[in-house]
Amino acid sequence: MFANELFAGVEMGGTKCVCILGTGPNDVRAVERLPTRAYDETLCGIEGILERWRSQYGKIRALGIASFGPLDLRSQSQTYGFVTSTAKAGWRNSDVAGRLERRFGIPVGFDTDVNGAALAEGRWGAAVGLSDFAYVTVGTGIGVGTVVGGKTVFGMNHTELGHIRVARRAGDSFAGICAFHGDCVEGLASGPAIEARGGMPASKLPMEHPVWSCVAHDLGQLLHTMVLTTAPQRIFLGGGVLNAQTHLFERVQKELTRSLNHYVEAEELETGIAQYIVPPGLGTMSGPLGALALAVDADLGNARRAFTPALIVSQ
Amino acid sequence: MFANELFAGVEMGGTKCVCILGTGPNDVRAVERLPTRAYDETLCGIEGILERWRSQYGKIRALGIASFGPLDLRSQSQTYGFVTSTAKAGWRNSDVAGRLERRFGIPVGFDTDVNGAALAEGRWGAAVGLSDFAYVTVGTGIGVGTVVGGKTVFGMNHTELGHIRVARRAGDSFAGICAFHGDCVEGLASGPAIEARGGMPASKLPMEHPVWSCVAHDLGQLLHTMVLTTAPQRIFLGGGVLNAQTHLFERVQKELTRSLNHYVEAEELETGIAQYIVPPGLGTMSGPLGALALAVDADLGNARRAFTPALIVSQ
Repeated sequence: MFANELFAGVEMGGTKCVCILGTGPNDVRAVERLPTRAYDETLCGIEGILERWRSQYGKIRALGIASFGPLDLRSQSQTYGFVTSTAKAGWRNSDVAGRLERRFGIPVGFDTDVNGAALAEGRWGAAVGLSDFAYVTVGTGIGVGTVVGGKTVFGMNHTELGHIRVARRAGDSFAGICAFHGDCVEGLASGPAIEARGGMPASKLPMEHPVWSCVAHDLGQLLHTMVLTTAPQRIFLGGGVLNAQTHLFERVQKELTRSLNHYVEAEELETGIAQYIVPPGLGTMSGPLGALALAVDADLGNARRAFTPALIVSQ
Repeated sequence: MFANELFAGVEMGGTKCVCILGTGPNDVRAVERLPTRAYDETLCGIEGILERWRSQYGKIRALGIASFGPLDLRSQSQTYGFVTSTAKAGWRNSDVAGRLERRFGIPVGFDTDVNGAALAEGRWGAAVGLSDFAYVTVGTGIGVGTVVGGKTVFGMNHTELGHIRVARRAGDSFAGICAFHGDCVEGLASGPAIEARGGMPASKLPMEHPVWSCVAHDLGQLLHTMVLTTAPQRIFLGGGVLNAQTHLFERVQKELTRSLNHYVEAEELETGIAQYIVPPGLGTMSGPLGALALAVDADLGNARRAFTPALIVSQ
């Protein structure tokens, strides 16, 4: 392994960013976290870490950014590489990929945090050998990375399954907290939604609390839609809420089986359900490794959307 | 054009089958329709038409079957090429592709009717040049064919978006008619569901009837989910109900825009919405031409799932 084969990744989350340096899960040279604050402060922090790593470890071949969204990933767009219509204060329409590409002058892979995590599962984790799979994260928000035929789905723009609306559980009248859609899945079952439902942080709610029945139902509905829209061969559930509330796995599995009602005849959905809906193989590292996977793809020229080179300010 | 370059297609619908012979929309040599009755009677009718065409027009290079579902499309499956868990009487677990392949000994492409129609739009219709698009049919059932990165989506099995469940319109308490899911989209807004809602066939309901507000809402919710799950660059709406009720286009467009609430920033969803949700470019021929497109793909070796050759009974 040569020093000039190192890749860097930045997982930009709603509350924190994780920077990672290495070539894969068995060769992580450095990891640093910083809180996600205002746009410029956060980007300066990331740039500082990457500069320091470059001094300390040598050349970085490529950078991957796996970011909260929505993002502009249309290669022809004037605002390619931007975070766009986010509700996150101070981040609306902010350039991320272009700024870092100009600063470091290396290939930059840029995709949603969840698409990155899904790609990492496919490259190094529990989706090796699969062509169609999905990664769901339930935390500050709800996001889904979807791989179809070996590539992340990208049409008019990237996908945003956290904002689909679902059939409501009988008797559940919670209005939802999404600023755009009220009771979309993110509005019903993300960490902040669970806190609004239960009156205390999700981490404090006991597993017997009735809120979890609603959350399991709503996540089961999300998975019902996923099975019928892209038919993943496996679905990974990660993120802060799922990592802490492992009882949700069995409940979500049951909700999905009940809701599909044997319409789709597949062993995965019946006796195989416990192997179908599983935690990510890369565990809590699937997010940062997702950013690293995007760097590897960018270096290989496999970045799905080529970034039009801009003025290089620093090299 | 040589005689031995002819392709045959069979669109198998819930009420009728359409057989087609030719090489594309500008070279259709023959079209014949037959009612979809019991399994064996229907297959015998299709075989008779194809035998007659073979005598009359000469060699058929490949056959495409675009069928109502659900279908088993898993290439390793013992029941590949079967119609599986359909509610349609007498068709449950019936071999379609294998029977016709053994009978005619030519490459057989087999996919859902809606995937075929989507591929035909991509090959010859209003999706030429696009990589990501979808075809929705609203008739006896509701089906969606989805093309992602130029190919129909196939993971654990084919997709079935007609059976996703959606947020209900405020005040709409119709229980839905789907035997599996009650109020899934097909249970709420297919032709039979509209008839159950309105007390008369959809074709007889005036456009002012309040049922259409529910139907537009529910189809708008289906499209909301489609935009967020595969982000099509264009969506085609076809099938008997849409063909007859053209007022639905504008209503569904409005429902979609309202429901997404500007979360996805794309011109397609704002000023461009009338060019985004459109009738199929191949009109009412998109179904039979879908079967023909599957034949062309099978001949090119592009059939997504290779059929394991079985005993050839007749040539």
